[in-house]
Amino acid sequence: MSPIKLAIVGVGKIVRDQHLPSIANNPDFELIATASRHGTVDGVPAFTTIEAMLDAVPAIDAVSLCMPPQYRYEAAYKALSAGKHVFLEKPPGATLSEVADLENLAKAKGVSLFASWHSRYAPAVEAAKTFLANTNIQSAHVIWKEDVRHWHPNQEWIWQAGGLGVFDPGINALSIVTHILPPLFLTGATLEFPENRDSPIAADLHFKSGAGLPVHAEFDWRQTGKQSWDIVAETDAGQMVLIEGGSKLSVNGELKFSAPEAEYPSLYRRFAEIVKADVSDVDVSPLRHVADAFMLGKRKFVDAFYD
Amino acid sequence: MSPIKLAIVGVGKIVRDQHLPSIANNPDFELIATASRHGTVDGVPAFTTIEAMLDAVPAIDAVSLCMPPQYRYEAAYKALSAGKHVFLEKPPGATLSEVADLENLAKAKGVSLFASWHSRYAPAVEAAKTFLANTNIQSAHVIWKEDVRHWHPNQEWIWQAGGLGVFDPGINALSIVTHILPPLFLTGATLEFPENRDSPIAADLHFKSGAGLPVHAEFDWRQTGKQSWDIVAETDAGQMVLIEGGSKLSVNGELKFSAPEAEYPSLYRRFAEIVKADVSDVDVSPLRHVADAFMLGKRKFVDAFYD
Repeated sequence: MSPIKLAIVGVGKIVRDQHLPSIANNPDFELIATASRHGTVDGVPAFTTIEAMLDAVPAIDAVSLCMPPQYRYEAAYKALSAGKHVFLEKPPGATLSEVADLENLAKAKGVSLFASWHSRYAPAVEAAKTFLANTNIQSAHVIWKEDVRHWHPNQEWIWQAGGLGVFDPGINALSIVTHILPPLFLTGATLEFPENRDSPIAADLHFKSGAGLPVHAEFDWRQTGKQSWDIVAETDAGQMVLIEGGSKLSVNGELKFSAPEAEYPSLYRRFAEIVKADVSDVDVSPLRHVADAFMLGKRKFVDAFYD
Repeated sequence: MSPIKLAIVGVGKIVRDQHLPSIANNPDFELIATASRHGTVDGVPAFTTIEAMLDAVPAIDAVSLCMPPQYRYEAAYKALSAGKHVFLEKPPGATLSEVADLENLAKAKGVSLFASWHSRYAPAVEAAKTFLANTNIQSAHVIWKEDVRHWHPNQEWIWQAGGLGVFDPGINALSIVTHILPPLFLTGATLEFPENRDSPIAADLHFKSGAGLPVHAEFDWRQTGKQSWDIVAETDAGQMVLIEGGSKLSVNGELKFSAPEAEYPSLYRRFAEIVKADVSDVDVSPLRHVADAFMLGKRKFVDAFYD
């Protein structure tokens, strides 16, 4: 099979840092075009709109959409309508309804849609899933606390309505939780909104499973000093901790698994796999939990936030 | 086939007004038990909890769950786990995730789950669907404005987080919209919260379809005087209005269809149908739009509301 001829839409930091090296090192893909208002990639034909790109380069087989979620639907609709496979950066859309619509469109067009969740491909996630599948889980605690000023300096879109606020990193935790724990649903939530912003800066979430497993998640964007991206499970086989966003796994304080980070290379391997198998991979459960939290959550107002 | 032996959980106003007469007039059902903290039905064995009822009356084939949505999951989980068919009043749950979970459980147990949307069975809804399917729709406008003091006097739960506020009636409009219009998704929303309440009193919603059809919805709970539950569509065949919550259909001001209201009798006919056919009927799209509106919507604070 010749390489999948790929185009990227929305050339920004995540594309330079992650997508480009992963594509360059994967023989299943050949980058043949980009569309972006400002960004370009050396040696690759560049367009400023997806329409212009799709018109000018009919050889494109697939597109990766990497712009902010508020603008993703329209590009995905155009690409799928033109019969292209689509890779969606996380989250797959600004609403659940548009993702459902894209899923139907991909099916109708006979192309693959990939709603990617990069944190699910963190090195120790599968080891955690295997560990938890072989024991009885008593409870779980998710702690996702980071410094927004460090990770998202002056990114206005994350604070706009629909920008998700602290759920932008929190959805990474939820993408792991929905992969390694049984199905959960929210029973209560508190969202803290800075009085000058339309998105929450912190969230406290209580979930349980049908069988009653309690899961507590804390997301906070005001964490200075040590950053925390940990999932702790109390089990009959001891305390399991999935550390640093899924990088390492420890049980009862002992390191059990660690491997180099390779999330985006894994995502592109998965994308090639579903394109070849002629299927889609769209699990909306992390975004569904976020929507549920906004619907069910109690709003609390806290100090204004300035970058 | 002998009648489906039915139990009702949560005996309140909607049960007395709608469920009981519909069940009494439908030979497919026989009401054999109720569970409710306070309410009972004359001549029917009454229990105070669903657990006690399921234990005491193993002959129950199906249960209708009519308590507020915040308490519905647990009862549905118990009923489905016990192998009973389940009828969920609208909305089917407090979160989308719990509804997805119940749908999987019903499938695993080989029983039918019915997420009922009573407004979809309003008399003129099918006539509107047929009219719209045979013309080109240019735009649509949904006006759902009622007086909360009249319709929900002193109902505290509707104002709590998760109680949905003005989306409690608004979801009825959305259940019709998602049945008669092409798939839509939200592009922008403003939710107005009374400063002393956790749920919105008004919502302004802009949707569009993949093909670009614009749909505007206005929900307001502060309407005194004339109440409005109308869906207006501008089409190539003229202006269609679905009036009074789906009761009547007019085109260019001329009444085209009108019939007596029979929503709940239709719901129970549908429930019997899916139980006999051994399938479920769970369309979450109305609740998904509500969750999307909470996730995407801009919050605005308005005057405190007192009953």
